[in-house]
Amino acid sequence: MERIEHRACFDGWQDVYRHESASLNCSMNFSVFLPALASRKKLPVLYWLSGLTCTEQNFTTKAGAQQYASRHGVIIVAPDTSPRGQQVADDMGYDLGKGAGFYVNATQKPWAAHYRMYDYVVTELPELIESEFPASEARSISGHSMGGHGAIVVALRNPGRYRSVSAFSPIVAPAQVPWGKKAFEAYLGPDRTAWRQYDACDLVRSAAEKLPLLVDQGAADEFLETQLKPHLLKASCEAVGHPLTLRLYPGFDHSYYFITTFIGNHIAFHAKALHG
Amino acid sequence: MERIEHRACFDGWQDVYRHESASLNCSMNFSVFLPALASRKKLPVLYWLSGLTCTEQNFTTKAGAQQYASRHGVIIVAPDTSPRGQQVADDMGYDLGKGAGFYVNATQKPWAAHYRMYDYVVTELPELIESEFPASEARSISGHSMGGHGAIVVALRNPGRYRSVSAFSPIVAPAQVPWGKKAFEAYLGPDRTAWRQYDACDLVRSAAEKLPLLVDQGAADEFLETQLKPHLLKASCEAVGHPLTLRLYPGFDHSYYFITTFIGNHIAFHAKALHG
Repeated sequence: MERIEHRACFDGWQDVYRHESASLNCSMNFSVFLPALASRKKLPVLYWLSGLTCTEQNFTTKAGAQQYASRHGVIIVAPDTSPRGQQVADDMGYDLGKGAGFYVNATQKPWAAHYRMYDYVVTELPELIESEFPASEARSISGHSMGGHGAIVVALRNPGRYRSVSAFSPIVAPAQVPWGKKAFEAYLGPDRTAWRQYDACDLVRSAAEKLPLLVDQGAADEFLETQLKPHLLKASCEAVGHPLTLRLYPGFDHSYYFITTFIGNHIAFHAKALHG
Repeated sequence: MERIEHRACFDGWQDVYRHESASLNCSMNFSVFLPALASRKKLPVLYWLSGLTCTEQNFTTKAGAQQYASRHGVIIVAPDTSPRGQQVADDMGYDLGKGAGFYVNATQKPWAAHYRMYDYVVTELPELIESEFPASEARSISGHSMGGHGAIVVALRNPGRYRSVSAFSPIVAPAQVPWGKKAFEAYLGPDRTAWRQYDACDLVRSAAEKLPLLVDQGAADEFLETQLKPHLLKASCEAVGHPLTLRLYPGFDHSYYFITTFIGNHIAFHAKALHG
């Protein structure tokens, strides 16, 4: 593991590390914000999963999360969104291949050799963080768009592993929308039963743990009707009594200007669960 | 004037406009953050000048200034850092030509045809803002690095025009450092007497108005010793009794992680002068 960026930010350090990932079989970057308090004691960790086309940089440079992480004593870890490198399969589209890992373990050629973002996020990355940084085993997870999908799926499938989960503008029903169908067809193959383990609307119906979902969505989001469809998650949650807070904000779109406006609320929400 | 971006952010709108600039003889972008309060009354304006290689986007996406502008009822306007377009002269270096206008009026070929950022920032842009937006004539100015140089020079040369001025990591003595000497030689020619009207350390010695300077500088800034040299500004201010607050922050570098940490302080400082 090599530290490739190290920058003072608020009372802590905004760092970027590169390491060899066994799950993904390639070199990967992740960013980590360490509040000052981390020099004296272990702190809980909020994992942030980014959306299509992003790297570890987008959330780190644009969300303005560090001030809240510093205030609440929470480490934030933001991985890249796919395996990387010349040997890694890719696609011409922005919504498949590099920058579009969809947080699944691919089973189909040519993707299966590297595209195992589910294992990376659930197992490998937390093991690395908890062994190499002053991180406790208290974990929460959040994300945006494709990363909001990833956060909810990862939390629902791993009862007890996360203290809280939230999402901005998540793809809640990937098996039913163009982005998700394209990615799942490629990564998981045509058999739609394999898709269900990565579809939040499906998973919530059989969730072993009723971890409350916090979802914020811009009402002027250009992808709201075609790709995001939060009403489908609402219907699934209502059908089984899964707790959901779904907030719709007039005027806000799909950009980081939406995230930066409300990330303080999300970090306060996670900090309460993490320190509670 | 055409609005090319319009995004809800905190209680207001983060917009980007494109217009034909008469000073620069080309099409230019600038960003403007309009707090909600601007729909009911005219608000004062903080102008932000960015550093080398930047466009109107860097500060707008990375500084996290909107939350403070919203809280204090201040409009923020961030122009691009040079003329743009295929017809505009350029240089292979990142520190001359496009992205490196240095906030001067160039007098030398091939630069003089477009590189008039001083006139653009001092006159054309405020006239446009004050005629087209709910902006009062209360103005403040700030900036980073090359833009910190621009902010201080513009404020010192225009007594009464700005209520307050501040800078992050400014180039305070461009006539004495590599970045400034390269730019001034090209834009203003070899006669160094022409350089003095754009050198903060020179200008402060004969400033007609003792507008207090607020300068924040990271002590781990990679350009501190070679390009920034804030001790030269301190010496000039002390020589003539010009009020200066110069704060050095251990650990902080030249990046936007430094700016985002302290932009709230700067906006509060400007808001006090603007609303006072």
